Amino acid sequence: MTQDTNDQYLLAARPVGLPKDSDWQRAAPPLAELLDGEVRVKLLYLSLDPAMRGWMNEGKSYVRPVAIGEVMRAGGVGIVVESKSPRLKVGDHVMGVMGVQRFWTGPAEDKGAMLGKVDPGMAPLPTWLNALGMPGMTAYFGLTDVGQPKAGDTVVVSGAAGAVGMTVGQVAKHLGCRVVGIAGGADKCRFVVEEFGFDACIDYKAGPVHAGLKEHCPQGVDVYFDNVGGDILDAVLTRINMKARIVICGAISQYNATAPVKGPANYLSLLVNRARMEGMLVTDYAARYPEGVATLARWMAEGSFKSHEHVVEGFDGFPAALLMLFEGKNLGKLVLKVADA
Amino acid sequence: MTQDTNDQYLLAARPVGLPKDSDWQRAAPPLAELLDGEVRVKLLYLSLDPAMRGWMNEGKSYVRPVAIGEVMRAGGVGIVVESKSPRLKVGDHVMGVMGVQRFWTGPAEDKGAMLGKVDPGMAPLPTWLNALGMPGMTAYFGLTDVGQPKAGDTVVVSGAAGAVGMTVGQVAKHLGCRVVGIAGGADKCRFVVEEFGFDACIDYKAGPVHAGLKEHCPQGVDVYFDNVGGDILDAVLTRINMKARIVICGAISQYNATAPVKGPANYLSLLVNRARMEGMLVTDYAARYPEGVATLARWMAEGSFKSHEHVVEGFDGFPAALLMLFEGKNLGKLVLKVADA
Repeated sequence: MTQDTNDQYLLAARPVGLPKDSDWQRAAPPLAELLDGEVRVKLLYLSLDPAMRGWMNEGKSYVRPVAIGEVMRAGGVGIVVESKSPRLKVGDHVMGVMGVQRFWTGPAEDKGAMLGKVDPGMAPLPTWLNALGMPGMTAYFGLTDVGQPKAGDTVVVSGAAGAVGMTVGQVAKHLGCRVVGIAGGADKCRFVVEEFGFDACIDYKAGPVHAGLKEHCPQGVDVYFDNVGGDILDAVLTRINMKARIVICGAISQYNATAPVKGPANYLSLLVNRARMEGMLVTDYAARYPEGVATLARWMAEGSFKSHEHVVEGFDGFPAALLMLFEGKNLGKLVLKVADA
Repeated sequence: MTQDTNDQYLLAARPVGLPKDSDWQRAAPPLAELLDGEVRVKLLYLSLDPAMRGWMNEGKSYVRPVAIGEVMRAGGVGIVVESKSPRLKVGDHVMGVMGVQRFWTGPAEDKGAMLGKVDPGMAPLPTWLNALGMPGMTAYFGLTDVGQPKAGDTVVVSGAAGAVGMTVGQVAKHLGCRVVGIAGGADKCRFVVEEFGFDACIDYKAGPVHAGLKEHCPQGVDVYFDNVGGDILDAVLTRINMKARIVICGAISQYNATAPVKGPANYLSLLVNRARMEGMLVTDYAARYPEGVATLARWMAEGSFKSHEHVVEGFDGFPAALLMLFEGKNLGKLVLKVADA
């Protein structure tokens, strides 16, 4: 052990709108002795994700809310520093839902943390929180299983420069689709076209999305992968083709809204076009992660797929770093570096 | 020929909100001599359908809008009174899109009218505008193909006492589902339970739909067949099960709205429940109509399926009769009797 106290961010209050400093509380409990079967993991990188905002709200969702006074939930990757489990040994790298803290302690088989070994020789550790982790699997299975693109289809993805969006676009290119991103700002748009090979990217801050879709999707939209909801979802609904598939993955535009969620006013386009809107959650595909990881890792090794992480340093910067997601400040997957290995 | 002028309702103006008398114009053009291949049909019953409201609006949809000065589009059933086509002979009964007029004249093979012979011995003429016509086929294929109910599923249908709703419910009962209707008023609710064997019906005028769903769908909702949109769609979204299917068939609550359409604010329930919302149009199933007609006709003959029409008499009453749909005054499929055979 390198120290004898932990360092944690607890949820102090349920945010109204964007999370404020007063919604967080620091705690530094002592690190308990390990019980049989337990391990201690030193967190190296924390995953910062839009979904975290939803976990801070009260009310039933696909996972229970984080309780007031509880360590904030977050995915992360770290290194085992103590072990009383035959399953993991000191020096192993693991990913899992370990929370916003410096050390995670618990059973190696813990059902909440879902620890899984990762191979830092196969890809850098932050990539295991991105293309080879939850966002990558969300993109891969959401697109292929729910979006069902065919070669020649036009695939549109919002949040294109985010963790899920950039992988959606690259997978769609691999499948022979025309890929049009939607992102906020010229830098992000240039980034997804130049770095990830998108055919075009619509800057929603620069003009109406509807006009951009008209220009860049002359054949209409066959698959829309939605990470943002709101007005952008409504704009895409006006341009969908017959039998189009809309994958509902997220709605970042609505997560901090203090007014009621804005439903898609143009949803009757589903009727006119016999189209479909379907929600997905990555955890349903857990049994198939090895297939997704193997495919993306192979493409990365071949040089035809990139995972890009936006790394922010410093555990103390967690509250500010989380806000970057909702302010659209991240370029690629946002990751907080917590410690050196 | 029984007379030498027609009698027609033309669209005079595009309605704002509910259609007014001034949105219609009567015309009485002479009946032209038949050309080779043409037939003249005397309309007996006109089909009055919620979708007609949409056809009166400008703008692209699944069919072109009715033009100003054009005969209002409507389905109907009638009898051939003159024929210069080998395909149809005088005395044949036909259904098709023949418009709001007393006589339809045109090629027997006309692609817009889509004339098809009907057998008045198999079912009364109005039934060919209901269970054995468009509403019945909409219900049958929308439910089975898009809704995909399994035995034991809970199926909810709005507009339950309308033409589509009453067939959706009865087909779902045949498939072994628990069927809960949503309708406006105690009479309609009693009607669908007593006449059509629904397990329950929620009167949305008597109290919150959400509470009714909680009471009558204790296992949640697996399939929702939506004819109404608006607040009822939002209420059902809060009660859907994992992998639920929502069939978007119509949105009668929104058709006369002068404000923008109210999108389903609770659509993120699709994400939480990995559920799907999909539009359907009956014309996509044209090749399979014989299968649908045969199935429903067989059930009718066996006494395990009912087609109920609400017949209003008199061609001059067309404008007022159409409004009954939007005022919720019809019990079953609304049909206007235009003439005796």
